[in-house]
Amino acid sequence: MKQSKPKFTLEQKDLTEADAAISKGLYTLKGRFWLEGPSGTFLGYGRVILLERIKLYGSISEAARSMGMSYRHAWDLVDSINKQARVPLVETATGGKGGGGARLTDAGELAVQAFWRLYARFQQFLQEEAGRLEF
Amino acid sequence: MKQSKPKFTLEQKDLTEADAAISKGLYTLKGRFWLEGPSGTFLGYGRVILLERIKLYGSISEAARSMGMSYRHAWDLVDSINKQARVPLVETATGGKGGGGARLTDAGELAVQAFWRLYARFQQFLQEEAGRLEF
Repeated sequence: MKQSKPKFTLEQKDLTEADAAISKGLYTLKGRFWLEGPSGTFLGYGRVILLERIKLYGSISEAARSMGMSYRHAWDLVDSINKQARVPLVETATGGKGGGGARLTDAGELAVQAFWRLYARFQQFLQEEAGRLEF
Repeated sequence: MKQSKPKFTLEQKDLTEADAAISKGLYTLKGRFWLEGPSGTFLGYGRVILLERIKLYGSISEAARSMGMSYRHAWDLVDSINKQARVPLVETATGGKGGGGARLTDAGELAVQAFWRLYARFQQFLQEEAGRLEF
């Protein structure tokens, strides 16, 4: 069990895989999980992809563009994440044309890693459950 | 681990609990799972509640009414379930005013039991994962 190493690379992940899925015969066992905080959704598959893209591009607007998402929507998601986290997961530099850069804080890095480890264990759970299915 | 005995009674279950949820501090870890077949969703939380209500009332129309669902919608769901299952999960008696009765087949009983056992193990999985969360 190499749980310390995330199973997925950034290149493999996109929003079409938001639901974990294991096929068995005619059927596919699917599932999803997410974290809610005091104001609703805190972290889920799409938000974590956004965090990874912010890390990759160093910019909320470029991360948003890479996901076909408006800057405003991405900014709202980051705001929702930061306000519900014990410490902010994204740090933004203000000023300048384009609004300055953005990066993940240490807490942000850890949250992303923890999410993918949970995702891998969830896939393992579904794999085991698919093996039990009798219909 | 008493996995052979479903954890839930019919009285406790309704559609507001469709997402499994485990709270930890400020956060709640939530999740859901479902089975897809050749034509889309085959079994999920709401469909299994419908099967249980059909068992309880012996009638698709009464089961539908108890869930605030139209008869037509319930009938479509049962049709979707039966067509995707290897053997039908619901048996209907034709004829008579109100369309005759309906009951679960043996395969239907087993499918409902299997679903709730999976649901209980999923809750256990989320419980363990909530315990690991560091944020």
